[in-house]
Amino acid sequence: MSVNRYNFSLTTFNPAGELKQVEYANNCGSKGAPTVGIITKNGLVLATEKRIDSKLTIGRTVKKLEKISSHMAMAYSGMAPDFRILSKMAQKTCAAYSLVHSGIVPVDGMAMAVSNTMQEFTQSCGVRPFGLSVLLGGWERGRARLFRLDAAGSLLPFRACAVGKDAEQRMEFLERHYAPRLTMEAAVYLAIQAIRMGDEQSLPAQHFEIGIIDKTGFRRLDIATIESYLMNMN
Amino acid sequence: MSVNRYNFSLTTFNPAGELKQVEYANNCGSKGAPTVGIITKNGLVLATEKRIDSKLTIGRTVKKLEKISSHMAMAYSGMAPDFRILSKMAQKTCAAYSLVHSGIVPVDGMAMAVSNTMQEFTQSCGVRPFGLSVLLGGWERGRARLFRLDAAGSLLPFRACAVGKDAEQRMEFLERHYAPRLTMEAAVYLAIQAIRMGDEQSLPAQHFEIGIIDKTGFRRLDIATIESYLMNMN
Amino acid sequence: MSVNRYNFSLTTFNPAGELKQVEYANNCGSKGAPTVGIITKNGLVLATEKRIDSKLTIGRTVKKLEKISSHMAMAYSGMAPDFRILSKMAQKTCAAYSLVHSGIVPVDGMAMAVSNTMQEFTQSCGVRPFGLSVLLGGWERGRARLFRLDAAGSLLPFRACAVGKDAEQRMEFLERHYAPRLTMEAAVYLAIQAIRMGDEQSLPAQHFEIGIIDKTGFRRLDIATIESYLMNMN
Amino acid sequence: MSVNRYNFSLTTFNPAGELKQVEYANNCGSKGAPTVGIITKNGLVLATEKRIDSKLTIGRTVKKLEKISSHMAMAYSGMAPDFRILSKMAQKTCAAYSLVHSGIVPVDGMAMAVSNTMQEFTQSCGVRPFGLSVLLGGWERGRARLFRLDAAGSLLPFRACAVGKDAEQRMEFLERHYAPRLTMEAAVYLAIQAIRMGDEQSLPAQHFEIGIIDKTGFRRLDIATIESYLMNMN
Amino acid sequence: MSVNRYNFSLTTFNPAGELKQVEYANNCGSKGAPTVGIITKNGLVLATEKRIDSKLTIGRTVKKLEKISSHMAMAYSGMAPDFRILSKMAQKTCAAYSLVHSGIVPVDGMAMAVSNTMQEFTQSCGVRPFGLSVLLGGWERGRARLFRLDAAGSLLPFRACAVGKDAEQRMEFLERHYAPRLTMEAAVYLAIQAIRMGDEQSLPAQHFEIGIIDKTGFRRLDIATIESYLMNMN
Amino acid sequence: MSVNRYNFSLTTFNPAGELKQVEYANNCGSKGAPTVGIITKNGLVLATEKRIDSKLTIGRTVKKLEKISSHMAMAYSGMAPDFRILSKMAQKTCAAYSLVHSGIVPVDGMAMAVSNTMQEFTQSCGVRPFGLSVLLGGWERGRARLFRLDAAGSLLPFRACAVGKDAEQRMEFLERHYAPRLTMEAAVYLAIQAIRMGDEQSLPAQHFEIGIIDKTGFRRLDIATIESYLMNMN
Amino acid sequence: MSVNRYNFSLTTFNPAGELKQVEYANNCGSKGAPTVGIITKNGLVLATEKRIDSKLTIGRTVKKLEKISSHMAMAYSGMAPDFRILSKMAQKTCAAYSLVHSGIVPVDGMAMAVSNTMQEFTQSCGVRPFGLSVLLGGWERGRARLFRLDAAGSLLPFRACAVGKDAEQRMEFLERHYAPRLTMEAAVYLAIQAIRMGDEQSLPAQHFEIGIIDKTGFRRLDIATIESYLMNMN
Repeated sequence: MSVNRYNFSLTTFNPAGELKQVEYANNCGSKGAPTVGIITKNGLVLATEKRIDSKLTIGRTVKKLEKISSHMAMAYSGMAPDFRILSKMAQKTCAAYSLVHSGIVPVDGMAMAVSNTMQEFTQSCGVRPFGLSVLLGGWERGRARLFRLDAAGSLLPFRACAVGKDAEQRMEFLERHYAPRLTMEAAVYLAIQAIRMGDEQSLPAQHFEIGIIDKTGFRRLDIATIESYLMNMN
Repeated sequence: MSVNRYNFSLTTFNPAGELKQVEYANNCGSKGAPTVGIITKNGLVLATEKRIDSKLTIGRTVKKLEKISSHMAMAYSGMAPDFRILSKMAQKTCAAYSLVHSGIVPVDGMAMAVSNTMQEFTQSCGVRPFGLSVLLGGWERGRARLFRLDAAGSLLPFRACAVGKDAEQRMEFLERHYAPRLTMEAAVYLAIQAIRMGDEQSLPAQHFEIGIIDKTGFRRLDIATIESYLMNMN
Repeated sequence: MSVNRYNFSLTTFNPAGELKQVEYANNCGSKGAPTVGIITKNGLVLATEKRIDSKLTIGRTVKKLEKISSHMAMAYSGMAPDFRILSKMAQKTCAAYSLVHSGIVPVDGMAMAVSNTMQEFTQSCGVRPFGLSVLLGGWERGRARLFRLDAAGSLLPFRACAVGKDAEQRMEFLERHYAPRLTMEAAVYLAIQAIRMGDEQSLPAQHFEIGIIDKTGFRRLDIATIESYLMNMN
Repeated sequence: MSVNRYNFSLTTFNPAGELKQVEYANNCGSKGAPTVGIITKNGLVLATEKRIDSKLTIGRTVKKLEKISSHMAMAYSGMAPDFRILSKMAQKTCAAYSLVHSGIVPVDGMAMAVSNTMQEFTQSCGVRPFGLSVLLGGWERGRARLFRLDAAGSLLPFRACAVGKDAEQRMEFLERHYAPRLTMEAAVYLAIQAIRMGDEQSLPAQHFEIGIIDKTGFRRLDIATIESYLMNMN
Repeated sequence: MSVNRYNFSLTTFNPAGELKQVEYANNCGSKGAPTVGIITKNGLVLATEKRIDSKLTIGRTVKKLEKISSHMAMAYSGMAPDFRILSKMAQKTCAAYSLVHSGIVPVDGMAMAVSNTMQEFTQSCGVRPFGLSVLLGGWERGRARLFRLDAAGSLLPFRACAVGKDAEQRMEFLERHYAPRLTMEAAVYLAIQAIRMGDEQSLPAQHFEIGIIDKTGFRRLDIATIESYLMNMN
Repeated sequence: MSVNRYNFSLTTFNPAGELKQVEYANNCGSKGAPTVGIITKNGLVLATEKRIDSKLTIGRTVKKLEKISSHMAMAYSGMAPDFRILSKMAQKTCAAYSLVHSGIVPVDGMAMAVSNTMQEFTQSCGVRPFGLSVLLGGWERGRARLFRLDAAGSLLPFRACAVGKDAEQRMEFLERHYAPRLTMEAAVYLAIQAIRMGDEQSLPAQHFEIGIIDKTGFRRLDIATIESYLMNMN
Repeated sequence: MSVNRYNFSLTTFNPAGELKQVEYANNCGSKGAPTVGIITKNGLVLATEKRIDSKLTIGRTVKKLEKISSHMAMAYSGMAPDFRILSKMAQKTCAAYSLVHSGIVPVDGMAMAVSNTMQEFTQSCGVRPFGLSVLLGGWERGRARLFRLDAAGSLLPFRACAVGKDAEQRMEFLERHYAPRLTMEAAVYLAIQAIRMGDEQSLPAQHFEIGIIDKTGFRRLDIATIESYLMNMN
């Protein structure tokens, strides 16, 4: 029963100065599928696990990475419908920006816009926080950028980052193995390892969604490519 | 009494990071009449059980499948009035789309529009989530598409899918018997079997509503056709 | 005291996926005076019991059936003031429709409009559901239509239907005695019997309100006519 | 203390399908001063008891009957300020009607307008129901009309009616003594008797407010006239 | 603690049909300083006790009587800030009236306008009732008028009236001593006596505020005049 | 825990007719730093204690007295941020007044405008009362005026007044020592004594803020001047 | 469980006249990373600790100091997303100011604008207070200004100030070591010492963010410069 007494507490502090509702929303992100982002010398890798409950699901068309603009993409751990709303919002913001300005959309500006929306949902009454953690990455002016956004609206730049289930252990793994100027290939191997960490059985290729951003823009790896990565790892 | 303490909790997370009210709305869908969608080599079958309490009900005109556009339709498990609202909304969106664009309305765009509406009702205060699960299917550019939408606003593409009462067992049944390039006829037999699963007595033809979508568009099977299917099965 | 704790629960699901407040509103309809609708070969009969507490009430002018358009009418069980609001709304919708379109207003469109309003009052905050069950009937294109609407906004077509107190027993009675191509006269006898069912004393003519819809439109039976029906039955 | 837990319950049903808050508002009307309306062969009598706490009150100018239009008036039992609001609203509606239409305002239309307002206050959040019962009477097209309106927005036509304290006993008294074509004089005697019923001491003339509506319109009886009625009765 | 559970109950009835919050607001008026109004043959006296806590208060400029128009004034018992709001509102209404109409503002119309505002604050959500009782008096067409308004929005005309602390005993005193055609002087003596009633020590002149309205308009008695009245009384 | 149950009670009366939330807001003012205002024969002194927690605070620029117009100023006890809002509002009102009218702004009009704002925050839902007591003083037409405003919106004129911590004892002190036609110098000594009352150690000059209003307008005493006052007192 | 009962209490006083929710918001600031501001003879130093959880965070681009205009900056302790909102608001206000006025934006005006926003969030319903303490500093007309703002909207000018974890001890440290006309260099050493206070291990250069404002405007110290400061201190 106690579970149902958390009504409307979203906007208030407890005596310890904490916003419990925001922490609970972050717990929603912390239970999500593991998602990893890694900056390389030429670009950026975003990788996530797709949990596909049924073999009748057309996994290929389930998108857990969303292209935001030609050189920018978002991944997440947590509630899929909330992510859809946020990513659409980001795509529209990019499109609107392009109508006014020329050149590539700045990655940090987009990260701030998205995280400001997430903050707003923690300070207003009558809405709940977004239930997810987001990795937003992009390529601009010759280098890759990667940001982690959480339900509170926090925003931090990373060289490599993991969110979702057991994020702490995966972060430690990345810290041990990350090297400043990884090749794209090495980063894909590292991302797959970080996601597979602790799994007793190796996940099949369809359970991965991997995206790459470099100077040519964003593209998804096809299943065959992911399979060849997996085969090389065993 | 405890039943009545769930007021206004719709928009908040519990400490475990769950949105209980959305789960309860999904429970409403999970108790609904079984509904099945199956993609075939030439199109798509949508089938559902019509629970007709009285023989005085004019079952023929009760519609549990709604045509959304010439090549698209929706079925559901859960609250009929909520479905009526969502399906009308979808029909209007299609009609508005046709006024602006030419050609056939994209199925995934429509699925996203409907599920965004469902998500919005989980994040705003003062409304409750929709109490149903939806199957939305259509034919476009030479192939059929089938999406499952739930009360949280989740959206997943399927080759074949069951929602409503005992959805898990019916999914397992579909997984065992689904074949990639089924004929339309075989898919109708499969859908009827999935719906009848576990019933001790065989349902009469009037208790089924079956729709077919192919390149010629959406049409409902008449009672005589359903009866001949049922007779062939016994 | 517990009775007063049901505040604001109208828009939320309980763990079982039920909307209790809507069920309670339906209970309001289920306690109302019995009301019956029967489709005949040439039209439709709507009949209801008028509970007149005092002989000083001018029963003749109490209307429990409301004409909605030339060929359409509504009856109800439950809260009279709520019915007045809904029927006025329906009358205005019909009048507005006639200003734009020519010909007779479609009965199913009107039934959907009314039940959509009833659904809306179950999903929005700050209003309560309507406390009644409605029978809406009409004649169009050579045939009669009859719909049952409930507090949840559900909408079902019937050949014959009873709502209000002991609706289940009255439905069983109708199921036993209904025949597809009843004459109008036979349908009036059947409706009266369904309403009188279980009453120890026979109700006087003033306690009935009976309306008929056929190709000539809607009209109410006068007291003398009802009395002659009653006399023939004893 | 329990008295103060009834917050905001105005718009919801309890499990028995009742709107308790509306019943409580009706209880407010049921405790009010007795008020009686009687249709005669030539018109209508409205009579009520004025409870004047102090002899310093200028009873003569306290109006418990309000003229609504030339041939229409309202009386009430319950909260005086609520009545003032409703009667002003009715007067304005009549005045606006006269600007647009010619001829006398229909009594039943006015009764419906007032009771619709009362219904609206039972279905919306953030307002309470009106705390009174109303008798609305008028003369039109050669006959008198009398309506009883309650806090729920119910509307019933009567030949004679009593509201307020001990309304049931007074109704029984009226039922025993009412005759179809009473003279105006006889109706005034009957109304006074119905109001005095059960009082040990006879009320003085100032404690009555009596209005008459006939083809010449509405007028109040002066104290002298009421006194002569009272003297004739002892 | 219980004191703090009365949240938001302002607009609802308890089972006995009472609006407790309005009664509590009236209790606020009933604890206020005694205030008296008396109609004389040539005008009207309004008198009230000024409770001046400190001799440093400039009692002379504290106004507990407010002039509303040339021939109208208001006095009160209860919350001073609420009175300020109501009296300003009345002054503005009078000023606006004068811009449109010629002649003196009707006293009963003003009393109704003020009490309607007070009623509105008992029926709307999100505001509390006004915490005071008001005496509003004026001179028009050769005679004086005096009205009592309470927190519920009730409105009663009086020849003489007392509100505030121990209002009942003061009303009895006025009833015993009031005579229909008092001189202004006699009414001032009577008002002072009614206010001093029960006080062991006689209040000094500064503790009275006394206003007079006659055909020449409203004016306040100065301290010297009040003192001479007091001296004549001992 | 009980501390946190006072939600939303701001606009309702308890059974004793009290507005507890307003009393609590006044308690906030009653705990504030002592503040004193004294009318002299040529003007007005406003004095208050500045509690400066750290010697690194630039006490000189902390303003606890605010100039409202050339000849008007406000001081307070209670919440500094609330005072900032109120004083800015007053300054803007003065500036707007000057644009429309010529001459000096009336002090009582400004006091009423500020206290009306304070009253409004006690009667509306969704805001809390202001947490302070205000002294507002000014010079106009050859004389000084001084008003005390509290959280309820009460407004009283004084010759001399103290608000904040132990206001009652300080008022008694002022009552004993106040004389009608004090010199400005004597009033400054009196104000300092009233503020220091009961302090074991004498406060240094920086802990006082003292303002003077006379026909030449408002000015603050500098530290040196305050120091010389303090030295003369020991 | 009790933690979750603090709903909506943000705008109400408890009986002691305290706004607990604002105190809780301040507790959020009081747990934040230590932040220090020090005025020097030529300008101002702002310094804060950057808590960088992972070595994969790109600490260099995490900004805990925000430039507001050419000669103004803000630092904070508490919630990063809330700070981002406030600092953006301040930057926009400055930009808008510059479009209208010429010259440098006044520091105290900006401090007041920001703290007014913070106050507003403590007095309105439906929002929570900002969860942080802010140091806002700038250079104008030949001197530096430094203000501390807290969640209540309080605003105090300081010569040197510390906010965040153990602010009291750090203030004492600053009070002991602050000298009126410090050089910029000495102030940087002092700020670093105040932040390192009590840490057993010395923090590396990357864990500091230090900004300087003088007549040439705002600039951040680079890592190398901070490192040389740290080396000189050991």
